[in-house]
Amino acid sequence: MSDYAPQPADKFTFGLWTVGWPANDPFGVATRPPLDPVESVHRLAELGAYGVTFHDDDLLATEPDRDKAIERFRKALAETGLKVPMATTNLFTHPVFKDGGLTSNDRDVRRYALRKVRRNLDLAAELGAETYVVWGGREGAESDAAKDVRAALDRYKEGLDLLADYVVEKGYSLRFALEPKPNEPRGDILLPTIGHALGFISQLSRSEMFGLNPEVGHEQMAGLNFVHGISQALWQGKLFHIDLNGQHGPKYDQDLIFGHGDTKSAFFLVDLLENGGYEGPRHFDYKPLRTEDPADVWVSAAANMRTYLILKEKSAKFRSDPEVVEALAASRVPDLSTPTLAPGETFDDVLKDDFDPDTAAQRGYHFTRLNQLALEHLLGVR
Amino acid sequence: MSDYAPQPADKFTFGLWTVGWPANDPFGVATRPPLDPVESVHRLAELGAYGVTFHDDDLLATEPDRDKAIERFRKALAETGLKVPMATTNLFTHPVFKDGGLTSNDRDVRRYALRKVRRNLDLAAELGAETYVVWGGREGAESDAAKDVRAALDRYKEGLDLLADYVVEKGYSLRFALEPKPNEPRGDILLPTIGHALGFISQLSRSEMFGLNPEVGHEQMAGLNFVHGISQALWQGKLFHIDLNGQHGPKYDQDLIFGHGDTKSAFFLVDLLENGGYEGPRHFDYKPLRTEDPADVWVSAAANMRTYLILKEKSAKFRSDPEVVEALAASRVPDLSTPTLAPGETFDDVLKDDFDPDTAAQRGYHFTRLNQLALEHLLGVR
Amino acid sequence: MSDYAPQPADKFTFGLWTVGWPANDPFGVATRPPLDPVESVHRLAELGAYGVTFHDDDLLATEPDRDKAIERFRKALAETGLKVPMATTNLFTHPVFKDGGLTSNDRDVRRYALRKVRRNLDLAAELGAETYVVWGGREGAESDAAKDVRAALDRYKEGLDLLADYVVEKGYSLRFALEPKPNEPRGDILLPTIGHALGFISQLSRSEMFGLNPEVGHEQMAGLNFVHGISQALWQGKLFHIDLNGQHGPKYDQDLIFGHGDTKSAFFLVDLLENGGYEGPRHFDYKPLRTEDPADVWVSAAANMRTYLILKEKSAKFRSDPEVVEALAASRVPDLSTPTLAPGETFDDVLKDDFDPDTAAQRGYHFTRLNQLALEHLLGVR
Amino acid sequence: MSDYAPQPADKFTFGLWTVGWPANDPFGVATRPPLDPVESVHRLAELGAYGVTFHDDDLLATEPDRDKAIERFRKALAETGLKVPMATTNLFTHPVFKDGGLTSNDRDVRRYALRKVRRNLDLAAELGAETYVVWGGREGAESDAAKDVRAALDRYKEGLDLLADYVVEKGYSLRFALEPKPNEPRGDILLPTIGHALGFISQLSRSEMFGLNPEVGHEQMAGLNFVHGISQALWQGKLFHIDLNGQHGPKYDQDLIFGHGDTKSAFFLVDLLENGGYEGPRHFDYKPLRTEDPADVWVSAAANMRTYLILKEKSAKFRSDPEVVEALAASRVPDLSTPTLAPGETFDDVLKDDFDPDTAAQRGYHFTRLNQLALEHLLGVR
Repeated sequence: MSDYAPQPADKFTFGLWTVGWPANDPFGVATRPPLDPVESVHRLAELGAYGVTFHDDDLLATEPDRDKAIERFRKALAETGLKVPMATTNLFTHPVFKDGGLTSNDRDVRRYALRKVRRNLDLAAELGAETYVVWGGREGAESDAAKDVRAALDRYKEGLDLLADYVVEKGYSLRFALEPKPNEPRGDILLPTIGHALGFISQLSRSEMFGLNPEVGHEQMAGLNFVHGISQALWQGKLFHIDLNGQHGPKYDQDLIFGHGDTKSAFFLVDLLENGGYEGPRHFDYKPLRTEDPADVWVSAAANMRTYLILKEKSAKFRSDPEVVEALAASRVPDLSTPTLAPGETFDDVLKDDFDPDTAAQRGYHFTRLNQLALEHLLGVR
Repeated sequence: MSDYAPQPADKFTFGLWTVGWPANDPFGVATRPPLDPVESVHRLAELGAYGVTFHDDDLLATEPDRDKAIERFRKALAETGLKVPMATTNLFTHPVFKDGGLTSNDRDVRRYALRKVRRNLDLAAELGAETYVVWGGREGAESDAAKDVRAALDRYKEGLDLLADYVVEKGYSLRFALEPKPNEPRGDILLPTIGHALGFISQLSRSEMFGLNPEVGHEQMAGLNFVHGISQALWQGKLFHIDLNGQHGPKYDQDLIFGHGDTKSAFFLVDLLENGGYEGPRHFDYKPLRTEDPADVWVSAAANMRTYLILKEKSAKFRSDPEVVEALAASRVPDLSTPTLAPGETFDDVLKDDFDPDTAAQRGYHFTRLNQLALEHLLGVR
Repeated sequence: MSDYAPQPADKFTFGLWTVGWPANDPFGVATRPPLDPVESVHRLAELGAYGVTFHDDDLLATEPDRDKAIERFRKALAETGLKVPMATTNLFTHPVFKDGGLTSNDRDVRRYALRKVRRNLDLAAELGAETYVVWGGREGAESDAAKDVRAALDRYKEGLDLLADYVVEKGYSLRFALEPKPNEPRGDILLPTIGHALGFISQLSRSEMFGLNPEVGHEQMAGLNFVHGISQALWQGKLFHIDLNGQHGPKYDQDLIFGHGDTKSAFFLVDLLENGGYEGPRHFDYKPLRTEDPADVWVSAAANMRTYLILKEKSAKFRSDPEVVEALAASRVPDLSTPTLAPGETFDDVLKDDFDPDTAAQRGYHFTRLNQLALEHLLGVR
Repeated sequence: MSDYAPQPADKFTFGLWTVGWPANDPFGVATRPPLDPVESVHRLAELGAYGVTFHDDDLLATEPDRDKAIERFRKALAETGLKVPMATTNLFTHPVFKDGGLTSNDRDVRRYALRKVRRNLDLAAELGAETYVVWGGREGAESDAAKDVRAALDRYKEGLDLLADYVVEKGYSLRFALEPKPNEPRGDILLPTIGHALGFISQLSRSEMFGLNPEVGHEQMAGLNFVHGISQALWQGKLFHIDLNGQHGPKYDQDLIFGHGDTKSAFFLVDLLENGGYEGPRHFDYKPLRTEDPADVWVSAAANMRTYLILKEKSAKFRSDPEVVEALAASRVPDLSTPTLAPGETFDDVLKDDFDPDTAAQRGYHFTRLNQLALEHLLGVR
């Protein structure tokens, strides 16, 4: 059995805001002191991470001067070899964004949001980021009277088109990844799911530059199957980045450690990422529990990576187990990859089938056995 | 005050399966006898409906011979003047579809499903339908091991592309409307929300022929804001048809009478449909409660239309109330329709704004007053 | 039509923490300045409120000296005539309560929590409060490994028994009202619903001194019917107090204005409160939207009361409408108040009924008509 | 590693309606033929089950004559040695119960329901059952206007008091176990959660004869933590029976195989049952997937038991792992069993503590490590 020690080649990355969360919540003040991003970089490197990601404001956690903060951050990156594969902009903390950034009813705010993103795109490019995440957490409403959603989507598109033009103009090698979320902090957020974001992207002027950064918990807050969502994103070539964490169904955004929510779904997710062609970072966007002290934070960071590696090992064993291969075949899972029409067949040819639905209906799919095999691999008893 | 009497011009339509539901459910057998589709046509015409819609199998409720059933149905349409603006295929009741139709793991079943839809497309075209709904209620899974979702989407696309080709080849003036649903009867259904279906459509070969048939309750089963979803569908030009009913949040599919679920959302939905450019049928896809007798069924059918007309009247009053107009302006709702960049402006110009975020953050949006005005219009006290 | 002007006799009360919420949330800092509790008292009095309620810490919002803060508060009460019918203790904001107060795994914290409640019971009694609310928002866990729930209930009971003894010993005329909530800020909170709290209360030593303070949104976060829950609480004689607000189903705790969530449910709730024997305060526990400015706060406070009065008027009209009375009878709603056994009947007598279930099954309940009548009263079109 | 072969001593039981479910659902007809209860008894015995349970109507699945059906069933029990530890009455399938049984608005129906339960109590006692389950699946409403919930609870109590009297009068050694469910098939069901049923039981005349039969999926349909609920039921001495299955959060009632829903919660549940003093049957109330054939049904039955035994083994290893013991102590989990007041202490003594909340707040609870240890035991990597 492996010791599940993370290596940079595993491409594990963390948002600075995750380990750095001081643990304030809607009903309580911070339980941990601010954490210096430089310390985070060093600690995450020691734990085996590949890189870090950040919102512009994250760098200012302990050093208010932006230039100095960036300089210290660069130095830490250089010392540790950590990469910055992704960056993003905070368009949600400051009161000015209380009705959104790119879709605020207030045009002055929309313009300010554009400037804030633009400035951070320059920094992201400088730091070598490949992906720029856009989480529009404040783009939404609590009342259907308060937001003209079609106009909001017009403005969202206007803003993103403009930002994409800017990236092209500057020659940055950045792609955008939209991050869907159904609600919180707004009553309803625009682009609430993977699907809505995929639909929206199809309307953007440079749609090829836009993909997704789906988050486990965000889809599960809507009771949706995250593995299905990621499958569709992959199928459309739009899985640019991913936020791994845990959640217990429709409730507030829990941001649990990866695997500490729906464990079985986490297994199938790792199985999909490892076998589905995704090559980007495995990015953890979680919150260390508010009950924990500063030392526990690093226990939690390590737990995310370790759980991923455990599940990855299980996925490999599951796929190579001859009984599983046989069970998949018995359930006709691989047959779904066979086109419904044979090469050269026409629709008219399909009419000729000799098929009795009542007889065919008696065939069982044997999904029970297959699912139980998966469960037993997950539980480590096979 | 109007008497809210429905007229054909209101374009109210009903699925034959709605009033005809015999009221069996997972824990109980039917409480009402089968209803002759011919009777439904006549009763709905008397109540002021514009048309009816049907699954192929609905016509066979009391007359097993398909040709005779169609003939009797046509006659009833002719006698009443009711239209058939939409038709659809039942790919879910028969056991052969237990793992889906177009995405069943069983290729023979996929081919049978194609034949079944094709035959019914011919009938739909003959009856003058403009919209063909595809609800893939069995296209899904209960275990992530049991379905290769990317392969399933390949097959879904293959099937729909083929059907669209067929429609073009035959010269039918039919468009397809996909109907999303998150779950039930499958644990997870493919294309679970409006968004996922919009994303999927962007990948179809004849994507211009595909739009949506969203259902109020289906989105609300995922806790999503239906008005937001419809807004996005309209924004993308994809609201081809709509299923109106009621639901109380994430639970089994209730199919309540329109307005009997989330009443405030129903108000904003009517407001959007009446002012948002949707010109299609107002189609009710609900179930008369299982507690009700055959006469109550017609009370329920009438209630759907009456509630819609009541809300339509309220929407008109809301929009024309000078205090509402003023409140919308104070909340800067109309300003969102103003592009963020002025005509001729470039992104560089935006950098020149003299803007202090702290000062700007103090502006209130006054959404409370606006929402209360809407509520009071809904409650009829203004 | 009335002008819906609130009067003290309506017994509307507000938590100081509602209007005083500075509008910080998990993703954003405060958008409004701290509000002086003295100002709140005066403003609420002007708006027609009957009283205010508070957590011990609320009084310190703008005046850190506890004695001075209490003195200023008393003076404001005297000047305005506002009552303090309820008080409560903050056992959730300070980091020391990060694993709970009365059920923290840390015994020192449990003892501190007891002291904090005790001190505030003295203040509550002094100010004439009749009800002491206990919301154990931090009594819970994120992991099933981390909390021995049976031990936690032992400690919860120990603490509450002790506090009840103290109240009796001091001769205070206070009763306790437990406030259930399913989650947030903890992953799972103990006593998550009205039901769980009712069950727990039956185990307390002085169970007659304990009842409930249910909150609209808290039950709706679990998808439960609040009107049903309140009915059971009333049935058990345990509705000691109530928190009115609004929520849109299972998601984060929205604390919307009363009526701005599920409007139809709000109507039936008012109908129940006005006709069900509840005589306590109508207490609003909501949050003015984060988008709003300080002036909007008072618009929101007024909206709560006005909506209640509108719904109260509708309830009276609904109950006195002869058509409704007739429809209730046709649905046999009043018959449910007739005991199943007649006076003097025995179970054996019931065996003699001449009853054919198949025939009886054909009787319709006509709930559709009844529900539509209620809806039309709500919409003000009857 | 054990072979996880179920033994009668494990006390695994199955409802006849589980393996016998013909797989009809709201959108589809049966996919499997009716199953003879006699065959079920023999097959379950072969698989290692301890007993079977049934609704009165289950026995009639293939033999319509009640006496003959009972006779054949008895014979099968005698041949196999299977026990019948629990029985129940079907008050939901027949149309006569469309508005409920014991709380139907129709008094004639309430009386009929009483007779039906009474007759089956006699049979249950004859067959040696110890527990009589009452699932009031139709006791509820879709509209708040349609059901006077307080009257309904009066009638529910009246009926259950009468039935308890009957059991006492006849000298049966039966206890009643109420089964909560939030919704489906009714929009809202009375006694929706474990908590509501506990509260209600406290009001019954012979409350000591009433406990609970909670079902995994039913609580999870309301997003509630099942392990917490079972803990409270145990704490109140009310866990009389249990229904084990799986569910994926708030949606229709899935009745998945035990462990095939939230696997981590299943682990903690087994851990609680095995260590919490519950000695009753481990009863599976699940549905074999509709995709499966008759042979798959027995695969699914075996999977329930095997998964339970796997988790039981893991629980034992988890509890005996010295690192877990140490981690529990570090998290102060055992300390919660220490009373907050020391023996002999008074509340006044608590005032003397020397305690600084700010200092105490810095202690971490180390729940992360503990939860990760539990997860790794679940995954079998420790």
